[in-house]
Amino acid sequence: MIDKAPWITYRPELRVLDCTIRDGGLINNSKFTDDQVKAVYHACVASGIDYMEIGYKNSVEQFPRAEYGPWRHCEEEDLRRIVGDHKKVAPGLKLAAMADAGGKSDWKRQIIPAKDSVLSMIRVACYASQISEAVEMIHHCHEQGYETTLNLMAVSIVQEAEIDTVLQLAAKTPISAVVVVDSYGNLYREQIDYLVRKYAKSVEGMKKEVGIHAHNNLQLAFANTIEAIILGCNRVDATLMGLGRGAGNCPMELLLGFLRNPKFKLRAVLDVIQHTILPMRKQFDWGPSIPYNITGQMNMHPRSAMSFRASQTPDDYLAFYDRALSDV
Amino acid sequence: MIDKAPWITYRPELRVLDCTIRDGGLINNSKFTDDQVKAVYHACVASGIDYMEIGYKNSVEQFPRAEYGPWRHCEEEDLRRIVGDHKKVAPGLKLAAMADAGGKSDWKRQIIPAKDSVLSMIRVACYASQISEAVEMIHHCHEQGYETTLNLMAVSIVQEAEIDTVLQLAAKTPISAVVVVDSYGNLYREQIDYLVRKYAKSVEGMKKEVGIHAHNNLQLAFANTIEAIILGCNRVDATLMGLGRGAGNCPMELLLGFLRNPKFKLRAVLDVIQHTILPMRKQFDWGPSIPYNITGQMNMHPRSAMSFRASQTPDDYLAFYDRALSDV
Repeated sequence: MIDKAPWITYRPELRVLDCTIRDGGLINNSKFTDDQVKAVYHACVASGIDYMEIGYKNSVEQFPRAEYGPWRHCEEEDLRRIVGDHKKVAPGLKLAAMADAGGKSDWKRQIIPAKDSVLSMIRVACYASQISEAVEMIHHCHEQGYETTLNLMAVSIVQEAEIDTVLQLAAKTPISAVVVVDSYGNLYREQIDYLVRKYAKSVEGMKKEVGIHAHNNLQLAFANTIEAIILGCNRVDATLMGLGRGAGNCPMELLLGFLRNPKFKLRAVLDVIQHTILPMRKQFDWGPSIPYNITGQMNMHPRSAMSFRASQTPDDYLAFYDRALSDV
Repeated sequence: MIDKAPWITYRPELRVLDCTIRDGGLINNSKFTDDQVKAVYHACVASGIDYMEIGYKNSVEQFPRAEYGPWRHCEEEDLRRIVGDHKKVAPGLKLAAMADAGGKSDWKRQIIPAKDSVLSMIRVACYASQISEAVEMIHHCHEQGYETTLNLMAVSIVQEAEIDTVLQLAAKTPISAVVVVDSYGNLYREQIDYLVRKYAKSVEGMKKEVGIHAHNNLQLAFANTIEAIILGCNRVDATLMGLGRGAGNCPMELLLGFLRNPKFKLRAVLDVIQHTILPMRKQFDWGPSIPYNITGQMNMHPRSAMSFRASQTPDDYLAFYDRALSDV
């Protein structure tokens, strides 16, 4: 229809990361069963996905085992129970975990040398005010042999000057990518454009990539993800059926349908969605329902909408809207 | 966050059209109850929406009353039962109906003079091959005193040369707008950009507007709609909670949250969604589920997905995918 239609081809350097178990763990305290995690793992292998983020490296003291499932700590023995001798068996898929700054992670102890782990990448997540610890964590992980990224969370509430400072500091670290993270699902395309260009400029000529992690509060997660791809983002997050906290994430099934790299196999993704993810709908709520639309539009953390959706009146949209307005 | 943030202001000339009852009628043979249509009507009035498309002007012979509800024919007495002496009571809202070309509409008889009707606008819908009849219909409606638009359907399967010819013919008619209609929910942003620019060029300097009517197969209806708005589209379609055929339409609640015109009142929209639209979910299926993702990605009419979603196995995504591939 147009003279040039770049979307019918593909960029081989683009890498897809599945964060279903990690981001979804924010709904259920990471209490996925072994069978569920195995099914997602095998689907990632079969569909040609590049990275699977299998959980958090969070501290056992702060996130006790009695309350949180094993995918909140990603201890090596738990991981191996699912993936075996992963690096030998399925080297095409790299495993990742997320480590939070702000004291949530006991990273000096928890992050063992990469040669002894099934993990290949640690994504360091921080709020702007935690950037100093995040930089330390990145260096530590790098020294342990991991690939690293910096994920600056909730960017839609960070002041411009702070973003710039974070990017300046991040650029000096050995990260392979800096990720635009729209935690509140608040951003429109033009804001995504602006941030992707800013992030790209901050790492220009350094062989670092820009990533995108979108939330679906305004039904824009997929749209904003492909927008970022068009602008050159080569690290792309998605989850199966959009499973993730609150409104959820960019749906993997839409992303793989958009990418034209023949190495990606949509059928394996549909298979695990049908047999493993869809049944979870009976257990918990995610996706862009109206309370999440409202927090997204108001640039608020989704926690009020999550607790409302878990209440006795999850569809009393008016009550939620009136309360949200009066809280401002 | 950006030096210029045009989205925090608004364009007063932008007009929003609610087509919940018209497009939703393709799911339930337009068998909405009077109470449902009244609730939507009052919400449109209360929320400051500019146009409400209340149904089709389809022929009673081809769409018999035994099978189709009154909103498939929009006879004057049925309309007045809902809206009373509308033009006097609520002049801020204009009522519209859609008339299909291709012999589906008995337009010479059905479209009475506008001065005798509660309707102010007739939107003429056609496939490319029906443009000659559509032009006749537009002239007829205009002579009867109506505002008119041309809605070229399923544009994602129309060849470029045909689109150009349709636009050329349409530009010579007295339409007030020509509408980009992505019936299959197939288009990505760049394709929307291309079409909106092409449509705008075809009516340049003629005081005609460009409209957008998006479907949500790829969760892109809202994204594509705001993209069209950014490019200057001033006629924008949406439906309550996205209600509409198959994957549904651009959700009105997201659209009004994006537009910053203080005349629009989101609360009235949330009210009717909570009390009238949400309960319809128990009656019938709409929204971007995986079978609709697949027809959207494959640029197919949603009918196969609709019949699959109405079958005994609506969530057997693999079966649907395998069948869709083997049909190509």
